[in-house]
Amino acid sequence: MHAETSVVRLGLLGCGNVGAALVGLVGEQGHIIEARTGLRLEVARVAVRNVAKDRPVDLPVGCLTHDADGVVHDPEIDLVVELVGGIEPARSLVLDALKLGKPVVTANKELVANVGTELFAAAESAGVDLLFEAAVAGAIPVIRPLRESLAGTRIRRVTGIVNGTTNYILTRMSEQGATYADALAEAQSLGYAERDPTADVEGYDAGAKAAILATIAFGASVVAGDVSHEGISGVTPADIAFAHRLGYEIKLLAVAEQGDDGRVAVRVHPAMVPASHPLASVRGSFNAVFIEGEAVGELMLYGRGAGGRPTASAVLGDVVDAAGNLRRGTSASIGTLPRAVIRPVDEARSEYYLHIEVLDRPGVLHAVAGVFAEHRVSIRSMEQEGMGDEARLIFITHEAAESDFQATLAALRGLDAVDRVTSVLRVVAA
Amino acid sequence: MHAETSVVRLGLLGCGNVGAALVGLVGEQGHIIEARTGLRLEVARVAVRNVAKDRPVDLPVGCLTHDADGVVHDPEIDLVVELVGGIEPARSLVLDALKLGKPVVTANKELVANVGTELFAAAESAGVDLLFEAAVAGAIPVIRPLRESLAGTRIRRVTGIVNGTTNYILTRMSEQGATYADALAEAQSLGYAERDPTADVEGYDAGAKAAILATIAFGASVVAGDVSHEGISGVTPADIAFAHRLGYEIKLLAVAEQGDDGRVAVRVHPAMVPASHPLASVRGSFNAVFIEGEAVGELMLYGRGAGGRPTASAVLGDVVDAAGNLRRGTSASIGTLPRAVIRPVDEARSEYYLHIEVLDRPGVLHAVAGVFAEHRVSIRSMEQEGMGDEARLIFITHEAAESDFQATLAALRGLDAVDRVTSVLRVVAA
Repeated sequence: MHAETSVVRLGLLGCGNVGAALVGLVGEQGHIIEARTGLRLEVARVAVRNVAKDRPVDLPVGCLTHDADGVVHDPEIDLVVELVGGIEPARSLVLDALKLGKPVVTANKELVANVGTELFAAAESAGVDLLFEAAVAGAIPVIRPLRESLAGTRIRRVTGIVNGTTNYILTRMSEQGATYADALAEAQSLGYAERDPTADVEGYDAGAKAAILATIAFGASVVAGDVSHEGISGVTPADIAFAHRLGYEIKLLAVAEQGDDGRVAVRVHPAMVPASHPLASVRGSFNAVFIEGEAVGELMLYGRGAGGRPTASAVLGDVVDAAGNLRRGTSASIGTLPRAVIRPVDEARSEYYLHIEVLDRPGVLHAVAGVFAEHRVSIRSMEQEGMGDEARLIFITHEAAESDFQATLAALRGLDAVDRVTSVLRVVAA
Repeated sequence: MHAETSVVRLGLLGCGNVGAALVGLVGEQGHIIEARTGLRLEVARVAVRNVAKDRPVDLPVGCLTHDADGVVHDPEIDLVVELVGGIEPARSLVLDALKLGKPVVTANKELVANVGTELFAAAESAGVDLLFEAAVAGAIPVIRPLRESLAGTRIRRVTGIVNGTTNYILTRMSEQGATYADALAEAQSLGYAERDPTADVEGYDAGAKAAILATIAFGASVVAGDVSHEGISGVTPADIAFAHRLGYEIKLLAVAEQGDDGRVAVRVHPAMVPASHPLASVRGSFNAVFIEGEAVGELMLYGRGAGGRPTASAVLGDVVDAAGNLRRGTSASIGTLPRAVIRPVDEARSEYYLHIEVLDRPGVLHAVAGVFAEHRVSIRSMEQEGMGDEARLIFITHEAAESDFQATLAALRGLDAVDRVTSVLRVVAA
């Protein structure tokens, strides 16, 4: 219990799903927060595009405005919550708020993944908080553990399932044997996927989150443009069936790693994950972030990666933190981060799964195996399926350099005996 | 990067596994911590029982002492790390340090579970941090997410696998078909279990952690004595086999829940967990904490629950946090907590698994079923195994009140046709 109560007036920019849920949560949880922290949170002003639109929550009369700038500059507003999304005008609004000495809480992954460094520096000079737990993996505490709990350990790799749409699609394919197209259509009809699903299925959404995770985990600025992407639209039921037979699940992974030389690699791609790996059992629209660190060993943080109330609960956690720091006249700064040195993709190493259609005639395997050997890619297992025009070879390699593997692929495509390279997936070592 | 560097001198009380690992980590990670936070951590003094003993880490000459009080009172010491364990003298040392305005980081679950409220109040009056992330689930960030990230959501239930020894034993029983005695002996030979394993296998260690989790999750003081315990020594290979057949794993769970009436129930017991539940796949000595909240939905935090370096990494995260707050002249207080109102165990509700040995003669099932009906416990499934003297009945009930179930058990034990009640386990609803 806290003797003195301190009122903190919030200005919301945007009031969609997350904003409406946040207003609801402040109403429901406000008394508990006040009892525990002495902070009385008030949603004082809410900037929206359409003031006339019906909202699922009650707001005080006169609270709504379409003037976001006015909310930021209103001297009555102590703390700004940015839920507009996109880079501009969000960036200018956030910078203005910070310059005015107002802490900012945002759920905007694009903003943080693209201009995070500029915002961190602005927060640092202003001496107020810029918090963004909700920008990655919704309700799951990820940013705060990486910043605080793991301050005492060097992080080697962060591997996330951070896009609920693609994980839902892959789960349907894995559990119901759906095709990619059918699972996508189902996700769209349920509102889990957009009409234009590109940002999700091609890995751009996961990539922005991976850039943020890398920045915080390694203390060096990584932007969305540093991330290499492969999406899931090429994953077939045959790949899934083969993965199951070998004891794997196929997941879209966001991977950020830092080598001993300090260089950072960040990529998004589908991968075969051993069934015994904690990430393999992350189903449906759930998210998880798996962290490997030097002293900490293996950690996984699992939960709801999206949705109005889960995301709003992460925003509210940040609001309580930032409001408390504001009252105490302190802030938790990320500081000025150096730019990360990015390791080129072709220096990565991985095991690979490869599915190719071949002509079923003597000597084909000999020719194919020769291509692997020539490029120093060693084969761990091979299976032939089907006969005649339907013949397929399925390989799993030992760990190989990406550049060697890409050269192998190019050479295989040039072989007369190879009809088509159907699928290529990375394989997470068991 | 931070312009000014501030030296923070640590006094360690105790230097066993965790302490030695902490000294090592400060050496390895110190430069990164300094670059990111501007804090230069120095292990200045270390109080140990035996100064002459060889240590696995290098300490500056003259750093070791057997005078723990002297370390606490040394004006050169800025921050105290308590790794002594037990209640006294740890309690007095921690109280003295707090009164001197020195933040304290502890990994001592007994201390926090028994006299936490007193320590929180002392930290509050002194205006410094008392942090204890490492006291529950080792390296896994649990306390900080509950305190900070989830400040915006009401927690309904926290269910943990927080004792690595028992989870190792149950995993061996589940995966290798070992008996309890053999799995325990193996855990002892590997150093995972003590010569006297009571604290682990009877659930006292997990109970202390459950009390801490409940206190933080619900913002009301719960002590170790409030926790009801059942251990795993009665779990048989037959129970495990039956659990597998129905799609369950048996786990020792620490459960803390708060009802709508505000009352809190905290208990430790083995339970059948559906295979699809995230806790079911927590294997070996790993720990996990599964959190159900109103807005946040389901969260799970998973990782290494014990071990020198993992635990030391949690301690070091707390040290960095407390040292930063000390330099900024602030602290994150838990405040003065009200005492939790504890719900009596017999008001709990659960599904139950029950394994009884019966005489194989006509009318037995009728008599047994009558006892269930009489006490309002409804049966979800029943199987008979074996014949003659070996006949066994295995029941899973629908959700029932603990008091009704206990009355059923007592009445069954009084039936002529019932030889013995072999096993009783709670069942986590799928």
